[in-house]
Amino acid sequence: MQDTPALPDVGLVDRLASALPPEALLTGDAIGPRYQEDRRDRFSARPQFVLRPADTAQTATALALCHDAGQPLVIQGGRTGLSGAHRIAEGEAVLSLERMTDVGPVDMDSATVLAGAGAPLQTVQVAAQDAGLFFGVDIGSRGTATIGGNIATNAGGIRVLRYGMFRAQVAGLETVLADGTVLSSLRGLAKDNTGYDLNQLFIGAEGTLGVVTRALLHLHPRPQTELNALLALPSLPAALALLQRARQGLGDVLSAFEVMWKDTYFGICAHQNRQPPLGTTAPFYVLIECQSADAGPAVADRFTQILMQALEDDLALDAIVSQSNREFDTLWDIRDGAADFVRGLDGVASGDISIPLNRIEAFAQASQTALRQIDPDAGFYMFGHLGDGNLHYVFTTNDRTAALEKLYTLTAEHGGSISAEHGIGVDKKPWLSLSRSPQELAVMRQMKRTLDPRTILNRGRLFDL
Amino acid sequence: MQDTPALPDVGLVDRLASALPPEALLTGDAIGPRYQEDRRDRFSARPQFVLRPADTAQTATALALCHDAGQPLVIQGGRTGLSGAHRIAEGEAVLSLERMTDVGPVDMDSATVLAGAGAPLQTVQVAAQDAGLFFGVDIGSRGTATIGGNIATNAGGIRVLRYGMFRAQVAGLETVLADGTVLSSLRGLAKDNTGYDLNQLFIGAEGTLGVVTRALLHLHPRPQTELNALLALPSLPAALALLQRARQGLGDVLSAFEVMWKDTYFGICAHQNRQPPLGTTAPFYVLIECQSADAGPAVADRFTQILMQALEDDLALDAIVSQSNREFDTLWDIRDGAADFVRGLDGVASGDISIPLNRIEAFAQASQTALRQIDPDAGFYMFGHLGDGNLHYVFTTNDRTAALEKLYTLTAEHGGSISAEHGIGVDKKPWLSLSRSPQELAVMRQMKRTLDPRTILNRGRLFDL
Repeated sequence: MQDTPALPDVGLVDRLASALPPEALLTGDAIGPRYQEDRRDRFSARPQFVLRPADTAQTATALALCHDAGQPLVIQGGRTGLSGAHRIAEGEAVLSLERMTDVGPVDMDSATVLAGAGAPLQTVQVAAQDAGLFFGVDIGSRGTATIGGNIATNAGGIRVLRYGMFRAQVAGLETVLADGTVLSSLRGLAKDNTGYDLNQLFIGAEGTLGVVTRALLHLHPRPQTELNALLALPSLPAALALLQRARQGLGDVLSAFEVMWKDTYFGICAHQNRQPPLGTTAPFYVLIECQSADAGPAVADRFTQILMQALEDDLALDAIVSQSNREFDTLWDIRDGAADFVRGLDGVASGDISIPLNRIEAFAQASQTALRQIDPDAGFYMFGHLGDGNLHYVFTTNDRTAALEKLYTLTAEHGGSISAEHGIGVDKKPWLSLSRSPQELAVMRQMKRTLDPRTILNRGRLFDL
Repeated sequence: MQDTPALPDVGLVDRLASALPPEALLTGDAIGPRYQEDRRDRFSARPQFVLRPADTAQTATALALCHDAGQPLVIQGGRTGLSGAHRIAEGEAVLSLERMTDVGPVDMDSATVLAGAGAPLQTVQVAAQDAGLFFGVDIGSRGTATIGGNIATNAGGIRVLRYGMFRAQVAGLETVLADGTVLSSLRGLAKDNTGYDLNQLFIGAEGTLGVVTRALLHLHPRPQTELNALLALPSLPAALALLQRARQGLGDVLSAFEVMWKDTYFGICAHQNRQPPLGTTAPFYVLIECQSADAGPAVADRFTQILMQALEDDLALDAIVSQSNREFDTLWDIRDGAADFVRGLDGVASGDISIPLNRIEAFAQASQTALRQIDPDAGFYMFGHLGDGNLHYVFTTNDRTAALEKLYTLTAEHGGSISAEHGIGVDKKPWLSLSRSPQELAVMRQMKRTLDPRTILNRGRLFDL
């Protein structure tokens, strides 16, 4: 990290200091190193200054002044992003939502909760739980990742199958545009067809079109029954056949369908010093979860029946169904341990991709063949949300650059996406055109120019103008 | 209707005739009267010409030529819209999606189906059913209303509670912009965070930002159990309390929660020459439906238990649970008959509004008082999707203009929307600013100017520039 930043625009800093309370502006030595944190350990410049508005009005004031001065800003939430959007380039200042952490109250009539953009995801999950309800999105960084960051990246995670992406959780947003204009749409009406749904623009836009300050979020009934099972499977086609049966047999009650490649599964167990709960050696391991509002035994009966039938039809080689909360948690602990385990691998590379389900087998074959051509000793440690076609394609290689290029090219050739849930940020910009057409990219740039004409919000993220 | 239209741009018509197959262009006497149809029986001009492209490429060719010539176009689907967006103004031509009706095949792996924009909603429902699946949106005009129109108006209907608005059904779109640029996003990946989700822009935009030509739509598991019940209720608060219990007790299985005011319920029964299935006189009648992927008796048991408890707690005065498919259909026939019944009322006016659930009782009181001040003999025939806070606020009055103005003003004062599901079109433009802020309207206009700089698509719909 660098300690001698370019000098900030003194006039702008003075104007900000006059217009905002002292807590809302950090300059010089008051700026701690945490704003430069990066999950990927890449270089992050020292920010010119840090804005920490307490509310939407202060955010609007700050943005209007920065807009006038053409001051580029990096919008920061929990800095857990995996594509580098929050990493600071020379000359940029930070706009951090860290002080806007209010959550609540829960509105029981509409089953919604209002959350500040800086509130960690977990605080929303807890608020929902305290009200006897449930929040539909869960990701590993729940304690640090913020609601604003989740919205900016349209976070996904393990229960998209049942509850959808973060977009589906948003009932309303309050957003400040680059010039300080406030768009407030927090009525939370289930039905409201009065012109363009502008909120949609900001979800998944990685902070490039506006700064979300508050969000009204949908909550769900709390599940009365939660069940999971771990299965050893002979092939990917068997896993896909089982997925289809589970969908048909369980309907919307199916809440997660996670896959681990063999070396991932045994690697995690070893990393966690744990006896594998399912000892059978098989090429794939699948974790299935269902959640039901029904407290009775009907769901468990159906769940067990689907698994028994899968064993009988040789779709599964072995299976273990959790019989207690402790066993339920243990199965999830293994799956949750994947990220920790793969982080320690030598020469590791990874792509967060999604592939149409009907091409996933062909893609898996083609990609492993191609990556072994680059490095015959390549190791494969994939895992992910198979129900969504979303693989965290983790592998080891002696030529990271060539291997990733090949992986993304093959992803596109198989009709897939080079970013299923982590976003493009800075790190994936070189490959964006593999997933989006020149026409789409042109319209995206038009949107950016229209809403942020001086390009002050997360400049150079997603694409260059 | 007028038979002597302004003369069309002959040069443009020649260029269109050269660039398109003969079936794709109607001029002069070949233009039948149906393009001028309007559900509200308002004046609709004779179109300059009618474009009937067979596919996306022809749509792009036609739009590029019309864009060059600055020719305004009305985008038409099934012409069942209730806000007049498809009504033709002098000098406009028609772009009809009527020849793009292909549906299918259903992709069982991803549970999606590809549909042409001109396909009637019902053909998608049937395609889903034939594949053993279910489509989540249903509206009364299902046989005529098209998928493209449904997308343009973000159609709602009776099962939004469970499946969401039409927006939630869209897995991908193919759209042609005003200048003929094609944006194709039909991969249907459950997770794809690669820049702005441009599809969202076109959903609910009432054909003003682009012409959707094809849509990839989500399908759901077919319900194994469907149950409904009709209840007589003592008050709106009782209905809301029952809604909350039903949500908590049934979870996502609750699929519809419809309300009819007393005079609506008895009026429909009389209009249909039918003995009211529930004879008890009460101020409100509620139709509850649940759909479950579970074929066993568990859901029915829970459903019945919730109703019994409601009777015991005096939340409901009387209830009838359907015991056969025939009874199930009869209860729906009554609710479905509301539109037909109210159409015949003298001096009828109506607003398609939504109100936050926790203010709906106050709104109902205030609005009836105010409308009776305008006309002491006002009659009230409301019905709607109470689970979504969406009321079809139908009433009789001797001063339609003053009454609607009052109704919409009160709607806004109670935090509601002046258009829950029918859209703004032409007819509701005067009141759009009651539901959207000047800032939001300014951004909408920016979007329109950016994507349709010559304002050829549904000019003057939603708002004027």
